[in-house]
Amino acid sequence: MDDMIKRALDEDLGAGDLTTGAIVDPHLKGKAVLLAKEDLVLAGSRVFARVFELLDPAVVCRFYFQDGDTVTTQKIIGEISGTVAVLLTGERTALNFVQRMSGIATLTRHYVDQAGKSKTKIVDTRKTVPGLRLLDKYAVHVGGGHNHRRGLFDGILIKDNHIVAAGSITKAIECAKQHAPHSLKIEVEVQRLDQIEEAIKAGADIVLLDNMNLAQLKNAVHMVQGRVLLEASGGVNLDTVGAIAATGVDIISVGALTHSAKAVDISLELLPLE
Amino acid sequence: MDDMIKRALDEDLGAGDLTTGAIVDPHLKGKAVLLAKEDLVLAGSRVFARVFELLDPAVVCRFYFQDGDTVTTQKIIGEISGTVAVLLTGERTALNFVQRMSGIATLTRHYVDQAGKSKTKIVDTRKTVPGLRLLDKYAVHVGGGHNHRRGLFDGILIKDNHIVAAGSITKAIECAKQHAPHSLKIEVEVQRLDQIEEAIKAGADIVLLDNMNLAQLKNAVHMVQGRVLLEASGGVNLDTVGAIAATGVDIISVGALTHSAKAVDISLELLPLE
Amino acid sequence: MDDMIKRALDEDLGAGDLTTGAIVDPHLKGKAVLLAKEDLVLAGSRVFARVFELLDPAVVCRFYFQDGDTVTTQKIIGEISGTVAVLLTGERTALNFVQRMSGIATLTRHYVDQAGKSKTKIVDTRKTVPGLRLLDKYAVHVGGGHNHRRGLFDGILIKDNHIVAAGSITKAIECAKQHAPHSLKIEVEVQRLDQIEEAIKAGADIVLLDNMNLAQLKNAVHMVQGRVLLEASGGVNLDTVGAIAATGVDIISVGALTHSAKAVDISLELLPLE
Amino acid sequence: MDDMIKRALDEDLGAGDLTTGAIVDPHLKGKAVLLAKEDLVLAGSRVFARVFELLDPAVVCRFYFQDGDTVTTQKIIGEISGTVAVLLTGERTALNFVQRMSGIATLTRHYVDQAGKSKTKIVDTRKTVPGLRLLDKYAVHVGGGHNHRRGLFDGILIKDNHIVAAGSITKAIECAKQHAPHSLKIEVEVQRLDQIEEAIKAGADIVLLDNMNLAQLKNAVHMVQGRVLLEASGGVNLDTVGAIAATGVDIISVGALTHSAKAVDISLELLPLE
Amino acid sequence: MDDMIKRALDEDLGAGDLTTGAIVDPHLKGKAVLLAKEDLVLAGSRVFARVFELLDPAVVCRFYFQDGDTVTTQKIIGEISGTVAVLLTGERTALNFVQRMSGIATLTRHYVDQAGKSKTKIVDTRKTVPGLRLLDKYAVHVGGGHNHRRGLFDGILIKDNHIVAAGSITKAIECAKQHAPHSLKIEVEVQRLDQIEEAIKAGADIVLLDNMNLAQLKNAVHMVQGRVLLEASGGVNLDTVGAIAATGVDIISVGALTHSAKAVDISLELLPLE
Amino acid sequence: MDDMIKRALDEDLGAGDLTTGAIVDPHLKGKAVLLAKEDLVLAGSRVFARVFELLDPAVVCRFYFQDGDTVTTQKIIGEISGTVAVLLTGERTALNFVQRMSGIATLTRHYVDQAGKSKTKIVDTRKTVPGLRLLDKYAVHVGGGHNHRRGLFDGILIKDNHIVAAGSITKAIECAKQHAPHSLKIEVEVQRLDQIEEAIKAGADIVLLDNMNLAQLKNAVHMVQGRVLLEASGGVNLDTVGAIAATGVDIISVGALTHSAKAVDISLELLPLE
Repeated sequence: MDDMIKRALDEDLGAGDLTTGAIVDPHLKGKAVLLAKEDLVLAGSRVFARVFELLDPAVVCRFYFQDGDTVTTQKIIGEISGTVAVLLTGERTALNFVQRMSGIATLTRHYVDQAGKSKTKIVDTRKTVPGLRLLDKYAVHVGGGHNHRRGLFDGILIKDNHIVAAGSITKAIECAKQHAPHSLKIEVEVQRLDQIEEAIKAGADIVLLDNMNLAQLKNAVHMVQGRVLLEASGGVNLDTVGAIAATGVDIISVGALTHSAKAVDISLELLPLE
Repeated sequence: MDDMIKRALDEDLGAGDLTTGAIVDPHLKGKAVLLAKEDLVLAGSRVFARVFELLDPAVVCRFYFQDGDTVTTQKIIGEISGTVAVLLTGERTALNFVQRMSGIATLTRHYVDQAGKSKTKIVDTRKTVPGLRLLDKYAVHVGGGHNHRRGLFDGILIKDNHIVAAGSITKAIECAKQHAPHSLKIEVEVQRLDQIEEAIKAGADIVLLDNMNLAQLKNAVHMVQGRVLLEASGGVNLDTVGAIAATGVDIISVGALTHSAKAVDISLELLPLE
Repeated sequence: MDDMIKRALDEDLGAGDLTTGAIVDPHLKGKAVLLAKEDLVLAGSRVFARVFELLDPAVVCRFYFQDGDTVTTQKIIGEISGTVAVLLTGERTALNFVQRMSGIATLTRHYVDQAGKSKTKIVDTRKTVPGLRLLDKYAVHVGGGHNHRRGLFDGILIKDNHIVAAGSITKAIECAKQHAPHSLKIEVEVQRLDQIEEAIKAGADIVLLDNMNLAQLKNAVHMVQGRVLLEASGGVNLDTVGAIAATGVDIISVGALTHSAKAVDISLELLPLE
Repeated sequence: MDDMIKRALDEDLGAGDLTTGAIVDPHLKGKAVLLAKEDLVLAGSRVFARVFELLDPAVVCRFYFQDGDTVTTQKIIGEISGTVAVLLTGERTALNFVQRMSGIATLTRHYVDQAGKSKTKIVDTRKTVPGLRLLDKYAVHVGGGHNHRRGLFDGILIKDNHIVAAGSITKAIECAKQHAPHSLKIEVEVQRLDQIEEAIKAGADIVLLDNMNLAQLKNAVHMVQGRVLLEASGGVNLDTVGAIAATGVDIISVGALTHSAKAVDISLELLPLE
Repeated sequence: MDDMIKRALDEDLGAGDLTTGAIVDPHLKGKAVLLAKEDLVLAGSRVFARVFELLDPAVVCRFYFQDGDTVTTQKIIGEISGTVAVLLTGERTALNFVQRMSGIATLTRHYVDQAGKSKTKIVDTRKTVPGLRLLDKYAVHVGGGHNHRRGLFDGILIKDNHIVAAGSITKAIECAKQHAPHSLKIEVEVQRLDQIEEAIKAGADIVLLDNMNLAQLKNAVHMVQGRVLLEASGGVNLDTVGAIAATGVDIISVGALTHSAKAVDISLELLPLE
Repeated sequence: MDDMIKRALDEDLGAGDLTTGAIVDPHLKGKAVLLAKEDLVLAGSRVFARVFELLDPAVVCRFYFQDGDTVTTQKIIGEISGTVAVLLTGERTALNFVQRMSGIATLTRHYVDQAGKSKTKIVDTRKTVPGLRLLDKYAVHVGGGHNHRRGLFDGILIKDNHIVAAGSITKAIECAKQHAPHSLKIEVEVQRLDQIEEAIKAGADIVLLDNMNLAQLKNAVHMVQGRVLLEASGGVNLDTVGAIAATGVDIISVGALTHSAKAVDISLELLPLE
């Protein structure tokens, strides 16, 4: 995590914060509050604090909410004390992190709420912002979602193109069973219902139903009878997620959680100096 | 740029692409097309290609559009040839970059179009995704926007909190003129119209009008008469940007260009193997 | 891979190869042969060549064997041409890699041969040399073994200590099913036969039988009847591996493959200069 | 040292310890003991502790032995307290270091003991594991051996191939005396006794006797009469080292100390939680 | 700053301080004084202390002067306490920094003194030692000079070659106004007096007068009447700087401050051990 | 070398070359000549070229002189072709390297010439610019000097403070002989002539005569009669070096070669565009 933060600080500070360096007495102490400007699910409080700590270990952060909590607009999320110079220099970088992460957590919470009380899990994808995947996935977790594989290294997901390259679903699964570590399940993407049985026979543990409609999804659930996990993907939004969950699929994966979340509005307000 | 891409690849590949490694013959060659799934302004074609080149210098990319071009849905943006294994391994990382960058460029284009034929420039802010600022700002540029300072190191922007710390607008500007490199202009944020004259007298080059309504903005333009540049900020969206531009301010800065752009839908489709 | 090699070269060269720099004409060209000084299974030929390529892209390596081949003593494995200076400077680093990797592959081959024609897989562990895990595991693969998880990030293996911390096997497995990505199987280590049924009921996919004798292993295979994969671990050596494989367990994991492999004897011999 | 440890941790943890993360309460505290499972010479206690400290500075390690001490089987080497999660996450990496280092120290001690009370020094070579040279050499030192040059940068060792490239022993030594820093001695490898006198005349400080038998070594000692240091190399094992030392050579270098040491058996055992 | 220091330490220590390691008891404590061996302006005291802190956080430095102070020969600048081993190991690296930085500050002070009481600022250039620019510029600041832009990223300076490439001064300035961030002033280098008016008309904020004699400089000041800032460059040395300042230019830039400063003589003297 | 250059480029370019980016057509091609503006000994031509190659591999450099050649003022050292943008962006960084390195080589040549035809070697010290030691030492070599140890890792130099810590010259040398690699000579610094005999008896290979006058140096040479190497240090400048060499010492070390060399004047001149 520190590496991500250092890169972000380096990107923003470069050769130094010229404005603060020219104007603000480096010994002047102050306090600021972190304020929610809309309703949100908090994520990234630890990252927020760490930005300032990396600039100056003497900074002190206190939070009144923790990650995963709902914060309503105008509530004070936390406060931070230190030199005014450090508060001003770290402000934008710290906010950029916490606003994006809380944006993802807030959106995830909406999806989870829409999915209702079904057992269906809402999971993320690899459609994350380059360089921030672990933070994006953490924010999904905090929002109530579950994490799919973190990368190409910790899961076998045989997609359409892999099947083309292997020749058939059966051949692709056989290769995977032969060569991949035995600690991993094998997931296969199918486009048509009639491919499911082939996948199960060849030894798939999970079947990804790509872009199927509600009728197809229900059919799949009925056919499979719990022999493998079923994951639905494609065409998922806040309007459709409830009905998809109601089909009984085990998992719904939603790229929008991370590739299209908006930053929520949070501001850092310096309190009057004494 | 290579560093950002390497980090993104490392994040996704880690100890290796298990699925492709287990299933796809490493010598098998193939070709894929990059397809627009919605209308968009293209940005990031060079980054897209570079992802694959870093995996394998033998990959060849050809683009039918260039950054800044409008691409309508279902158009083929470009094509890429190489081993199927490399195409599959790099796919998600490459798409994550180009989808985000094109998303920013597309949104920027909408703002610029809404601002109309006025001379007012639409500019970005430092509210970018941590670690990707230069790509985010490049995408704004490609979309027709202009770039504000890239960080704290290449511009003097005296905000409310700096003024509090300095004691007054005049003192803050004096400090800046004394200590900052003479190559930089001095920009000051004001909350009220009556602060503008003080800023100009103290030597400001640019005045940032924070969260003012249309009447206030017009007033400011009238008062200043071109003695300094005027930048409007806050409350800007696609519905309001046209009217704000019509007030005659020189610059409108829009955080949403980068902190809340959605990824546009682009897919990579492997062509049938021969 | 390049990073590992660069670190190794940096470690050996530091501020430069003083002997070669002082004595050898930098333009002098030469050729050297890589010679097996004992029977071995080759692994690491690509790494060997890469060491020299990183010093000088003009170096040319040709191999008469490929990774996984058995090479008998006194056979020439390959040859390398370039400046004599580069051959001498890279020699030790390149040999250190290929001797260790071939040592692991050779030892693995012995285990696989001793396991006989059973379906039981010989797999490695995480007991690798710090910093070289992927090369160590590649060498196991080349020797005919299979790879267990590459780290803590791509497999769930609930060990004795995890069970203590969770309270029971059942609780530990429930936690894992709830929190870990659905792409991963769940493996549990048991010390006693009576723990197997609890593990299966709680949802384990693989059971690791720790330090059991042949009778216990046979018993376990009989009890489980293929419902989960069985992995034997502990007390495995070249004398015992055949009998353990004969019990019918699916997997035998062997730490010695990587933590106690000896370097095989390979030398690089400069041919007389013309 | 921290860099080596961080790389090893990164290699093992990657995107995180999934098992511990899913199962173990992050606040649960515990204690573990480090237990010798065979007789050994301890090396690497500081590295062992540092692995955990880098994960969590709050961990506390206490050792009952120090590096270089002989520890008999079943003795407790030390204990470590901290969160159970950190103990489990760092366990394998920490053990990989201390088991390898103690393996080297233990083997070195055997060689030193076999060399007996002679003044002959047992020294290591550059045949170390890539990336761990300084730790390998430290372990040799702790075991009672001495360190040869650490790399190509801190010693002049003219080998056969350098002599071929230079034209003669005399020319090679003259080049070295002319170009290398005056702070370094000049060591020359010879294959035959009649080359020794040429080396001394040309100004060698040390002569390396490559693969000579006991009679040749004795002869060399007799011829040289202390005018240069004599180093024996090749064909050294625990059975032969005593006789070689008895010939009166000053130094015996042994590649096996580092390229073929086995990890000693050490385990970390979590104590029952209170 | 820490990165620069770590690189310097790494460069000097590499595989370790052999002399100190062999001779000095690692627990022996001592104290040393930092002594001025000539009159100087101190710069770099924080860097000096940081070198030792990075080797051992337990070291304590106390300074009797601060950066910017004049120190006369034979005065004790400060003292440092810690293990003797750390004092000896860090000595050369720490002195290399503080001697160079104080050399720059001292030379800058001479230039500033020669410029007299005029309002003209003495500024540095980008002619700094590769890798140390921020320290070099800090030392100029401490010596009483001002900093020009820190690099190509925080200032627009249109030089002769840029004008050639653009076609004319007017075109070059127009491009710059169109494409560069609005936060930056535009500076243009001119060779002849008749180019000044074109530059001002096109919108330049600063004009750099390259290699002009005193008469030309006076003329320029007279022509411009404060409409833009004027910077003189070229042919500046301690003999000429006073007269150049007297012409009334706003800024004099001096490459020699950083590219040709001599290290001042400072030594670290270990006090007798108790 | 690439790392040093990349850091220097990064320091200068940061977020980009704003002036060139705004003004110069990125496809415009050009040629520039590297011109000596004073008499100099060339050093760093390879580094100069590499700066541009790292920006754009398509750049072509041709040199009319090689490192170590004397170049008289107004001679063209070499020429470089590529895009004008790359020539302008890399110019300052490339010049900063070659001007410093040639400055060191030129100064070294003066010392070597003043030392006359004696066998005495002029050597450098560790008083180099932090981060550039290997380039500084290369420039000394090119100028006709010799290199002392490159750091603390490749030589034993027992200084006054080490002797204090050890208790006596004899004890310090005994420690060094016991613990340091046998590949290194042992050098001892002495302040008085009567210490020389103790140093030789204890086994020193080199004696450093610190700050002695000509009479003392002659005395030392007479006393030692070639039993050890003698190095003179302190009070060496261009006026005294000849007489010091004439005393017959083997080595004269000169810190000023690197800590106080001035950059020589070299410029890069863009040729008129076609």
